[in-house]
Amino acid sequence: MSYFEKFISANQAYVALHGNAHLPLKPKTKVAIVTCMDSRLHVAQALGLALGDAHILRNAGGRVTDDMIRSLLISQQQMGTREIVVLHHTDCGAQTFTNQGLASHIKEKLGVDVSGQDFLPFTDIEESVREDMLLLQKSPLIPDDILINGAVYDVDTGRMTQVNLK
Amino acid sequence: MSYFEKFISANQAYVALHGNAHLPLKPKTKVAIVTCMDSRLHVAQALGLALGDAHILRNAGGRVTDDMIRSLLISQQQMGTREIVVLHHTDCGAQTFTNQGLASHIKEKLGVDVSGQDFLPFTDIEESVREDMLLLQKSPLIPDDILINGAVYDVDTGRMTQVNLK
Repeated sequence: MSYFEKFISANQAYVALHGNAHLPLKPKTKVAIVTCMDSRLHVAQALGLALGDAHILRNAGGRVTDDMIRSLLISQQQMGTREIVVLHHTDCGAQTFTNQGLASHIKEKLGVDVSGQDFLPFTDIEESVREDMLLLQKSPLIPDDILINGAVYDVDTGRMTQVNLK
Repeated sequence: MSYFEKFISANQAYVALHGNAHLPLKPKTKVAIVTCMDSRLHVAQALGLALGDAHILRNAGGRVTDDMIRSLLISQQQMGTREIVVLHHTDCGAQTFTNQGLASHIKEKLGVDVSGQDFLPFTDIEESVREDMLLLQKSPLIPDDILINGAVYDVDTGRMTQVNLK
């Protein structure tokens, strides 16, 4: 049995509790959260979000990439969000490799040359939050009046701590 | 009070329940879920995921982009995931615009010319799941023995229904 089948089975219990209700497409809080794919971070629970509250955008590291900007453009210009939270976390997978090391591994395992690609690893977690907040601030595609906050999530304690720009 | 401050406040209650426990960096189920940023989809609850179970990757539409492949490479090659679930949903924001319409809006509101960019809208939700499953299947960066499944999530009922390749 694949995990997919287990998820479908678990989902049946969720459906029984969900009820049939239509919530609006536009998020109630007008917030988009930019965070990591990490399995130990359940964003809705950790931030107290109800269904319909906020957009949740997740990639490896919670980094501001071109695709993240694409998603934020749709979030803001199509669905009215006005606030961004950049949330990185302790013990991140993006702290476990270098671009060169990962490219060598991929060349060996998959036979594909990805040397030169930036996989966006980082070492200092607060610095990575600041770096991504600044990328958003500087982007001509993110309006100046969008509120941008940053924080670090501790995967051991569940605590979210604000990171300020220096 | 910004929503960020409200999230920090709500997080304090979560911390009190979380306890101090270190879970492994590598996801227990070895699954990566590729899905949309939509506010009405709380992935962990809907699929019955516990903390530490699976990577959750989310962008506008749940589309397979270069950045999604970057994240999946890190998920698979660094953190050992072996299964992907592509999960799109009903009433998606990616069904509410055309590339040309969104580019015109952005030019008018932000003064930036993004004409020619593909924002990855779609009309048929099952087709978009199949399209992204095929992109993964064909990618030289995703090994052939990775299990790929697809599904549609109904935001009104919470139900997840499998989508098969034709």
